Amino acid sequence: MLTRSTTGSIGLIETQYFTFAADEPLLLESGETLGPITLAYETYGQLNADRSNAILICHALSGHAHAAGFNAPEEPDPGWWDDCIGPGKAFDTNKFFVICVNVIGGCKGSTGPMSINPQTGRPFGLSFPVVTIGDMVRAQTHLIDHLGIAQLLAVAGGSMGGMQVLEWAATYPQRMRAALPIATTARHSPMLIAFDEVGRQSIYADPNWNGGDYYDGPRPNAGLAVARMIGHITYLSETSMHLKFGRRLQERARFGYDFETDFAVESYLRYKGNRFTERFDANSYLYVTKAMDYFDLSDERGSLLGAFAHSAELIYLVVSFTSDWLYPPYHSKELVSALSAVGADVSYLNIQSTWGHDAFLLEVDTMTELLTSFLNRLVKRFEIRPPSGSVR
Amino acid sequence: MLTRSTTGSIGLIETQYFTFAADEPLLLESGETLGPITLAYETYGQLNADRSNAILICHALSGHAHAAGFNAPEEPDPGWWDDCIGPGKAFDTNKFFVICVNVIGGCKGSTGPMSINPQTGRPFGLSFPVVTIGDMVRAQTHLIDHLGIAQLLAVAGGSMGGMQVLEWAATYPQRMRAALPIATTARHSPMLIAFDEVGRQSIYADPNWNGGDYYDGPRPNAGLAVARMIGHITYLSETSMHLKFGRRLQERARFGYDFETDFAVESYLRYKGNRFTERFDANSYLYVTKAMDYFDLSDERGSLLGAFAHSAELIYLVVSFTSDWLYPPYHSKELVSALSAVGADVSYLNIQSTWGHDAFLLEVDTMTELLTSFLNRLVKRFEIRPPSGSVR
Repeated sequence: MLTRSTTGSIGLIETQYFTFAADEPLLLESGETLGPITLAYETYGQLNADRSNAILICHALSGHAHAAGFNAPEEPDPGWWDDCIGPGKAFDTNKFFVICVNVIGGCKGSTGPMSINPQTGRPFGLSFPVVTIGDMVRAQTHLIDHLGIAQLLAVAGGSMGGMQVLEWAATYPQRMRAALPIATTARHSPMLIAFDEVGRQSIYADPNWNGGDYYDGPRPNAGLAVARMIGHITYLSETSMHLKFGRRLQERARFGYDFETDFAVESYLRYKGNRFTERFDANSYLYVTKAMDYFDLSDERGSLLGAFAHSAELIYLVVSFTSDWLYPPYHSKELVSALSAVGADVSYLNIQSTWGHDAFLLEVDTMTELLTSFLNRLVKRFEIRPPSGSVR
Repeated sequence: MLTRSTTGSIGLIETQYFTFAADEPLLLESGETLGPITLAYETYGQLNADRSNAILICHALSGHAHAAGFNAPEEPDPGWWDDCIGPGKAFDTNKFFVICVNVIGGCKGSTGPMSINPQTGRPFGLSFPVVTIGDMVRAQTHLIDHLGIAQLLAVAGGSMGGMQVLEWAATYPQRMRAALPIATTARHSPMLIAFDEVGRQSIYADPNWNGGDYYDGPRPNAGLAVARMIGHITYLSETSMHLKFGRRLQERARFGYDFETDFAVESYLRYKGNRFTERFDANSYLYVTKAMDYFDLSDERGSLLGAFAHSAELIYLVVSFTSDWLYPPYHSKELVSALSAVGADVSYLNIQSTWGHDAFLLEVDTMTELLTSFLNRLVKRFEIRPPSGSVR
């Protein structure tokens, strides 16, 4: 029986950078090429002797490589999935070597539209090629090679991270043993495309956007903030908004009868929208949402069976949340149905939650229990040894 | 037994205008005053001898007084609820005198932010006072007075129109016999406020908006288009978007790997957003959404009982649609529960539909059957005679 020795933060951690495809640029799905490519990544814990304990965590739309711990002592909040990554946590860094990489097309250290185009010496802007979830994942395989890992124990992620998990499973099944797609889908629905497109239109409408060429001047923050506000609504649920805000007024005893903030929910959205512009690049928002919209593992008849034809040996944990209306449970059920049909070992849980899509980050206790039990099963089944320096 | 003599269009119709409160401005809920006020309205059919056959139709967010027929022979489409208003239709103009009024704060003929402020000779813009659903309805009572109607047979409307119906019932029960609130709510939920606020933020973010003072220059069309696109997503359902668009591409055989339109759903939203800017005023969008957000008939404990305490004599038809996630059926059920508790005569139907919120305009056959049967009941119960000139 496993006992938790330490539950805590992994402490200070440094983001690392890996550059590849300098001589031979990566061929993208669009037919264009990209290189050199830099990937920003972080790792937590240590590889064991036979390099069998590595878990790749894939991040969502606005995420980055900094999934756990602190990059600096003064950082107010730890990495985005710190609740689940660390000693004694779900992705237990006493046992596992956890890797998180910023996607290409992003803006947190990996090559994307705000990177310098070596051919012009200026930021790419819209001259950056459109990348797909498949391209993002292919780039990640180069990092996994670089780290000397032939086979990952698992690939895990929620939302857009889950799409990467599915792409990994469909395309590189021999390089992994388990897949954990959480609160995600095998194809972006028209409603998801619609919300993404409105967010993009909001960015295009900002005159500071200037066709994507804004790095020398003011940024299209107003448009990006609106895009983020739209996103935030879709990450919550009607119930969670009732519980969190209701019709409560913000620092007012009565209606203002003006166009200042009346309601707490308005204040929350304005704050979240504005904060986002401090940390995210508008062009990256365009590229990353486009990658999600293009994502579709099904064939022309809408079937997923072909996609997983060679992935039946993997062990799957599929998770959805009852109040997630962005990626409703039926998306996960379709996935489970296809995986079962190809004979894969699939565990599926539709978690009761009022938190909407955000539940995958917020239902920490349930997720911890579920992930721990699934990962323990992998440890037993594949006889995964802890790293030699592990505190256990 | 009633037989339908003619089912058809009411043909050419002229919008009329009524001006009041010139000497004594209307006191608004905000405490400010407004006057003179002009109301644009249309009427279809004729009043009967005892003036007992009048039905007021209240319009939704982007609606107007032009509910049926054609204002000009070259008009491509008839009024917004022409499917249900006309000879032999649900609101049968052979039997009923149907009235539709543009709300104050709107931009289709009634006084609103784009009207000329008599004190400055320039459009009001943001100096227009914030109006509420209560103010809109109070203005309508002046028109009903002007038309010489002591008591309406019914007040009907969907979405924001339904809020006006509820406000009428709660505030002027003695001036009506029946209320038909459709696909609506007694209080705007935080999710609805959130979507409205994002739409407003999108308008504020358009530099052409210029604090609402744009009538002499270019209009904030880009911001207004984004606001409308957000709205359009919320009027559909995930299912209706699957059926209508799926992941179909628009005039492309494969992905473009660029930021032009790839998907049909994107093309639809762009078209709808742009078209809207040709017919709607951005400032009106701000005022009308604010009025909806302020709408709340419940008391401080969240109870609706007090609101309908004096409305128990009315006959109600409450309608919701199963796939409407903007005003989900439980909003209507709360309404029905409160109305039943005060002893009102309530019929409620939760109509099975995949069309989302738009269903109230699209489920024509079901709505026609339902409305016809309910209105026939009123005709019998109150012995409503047809107008003398009626074709029957």
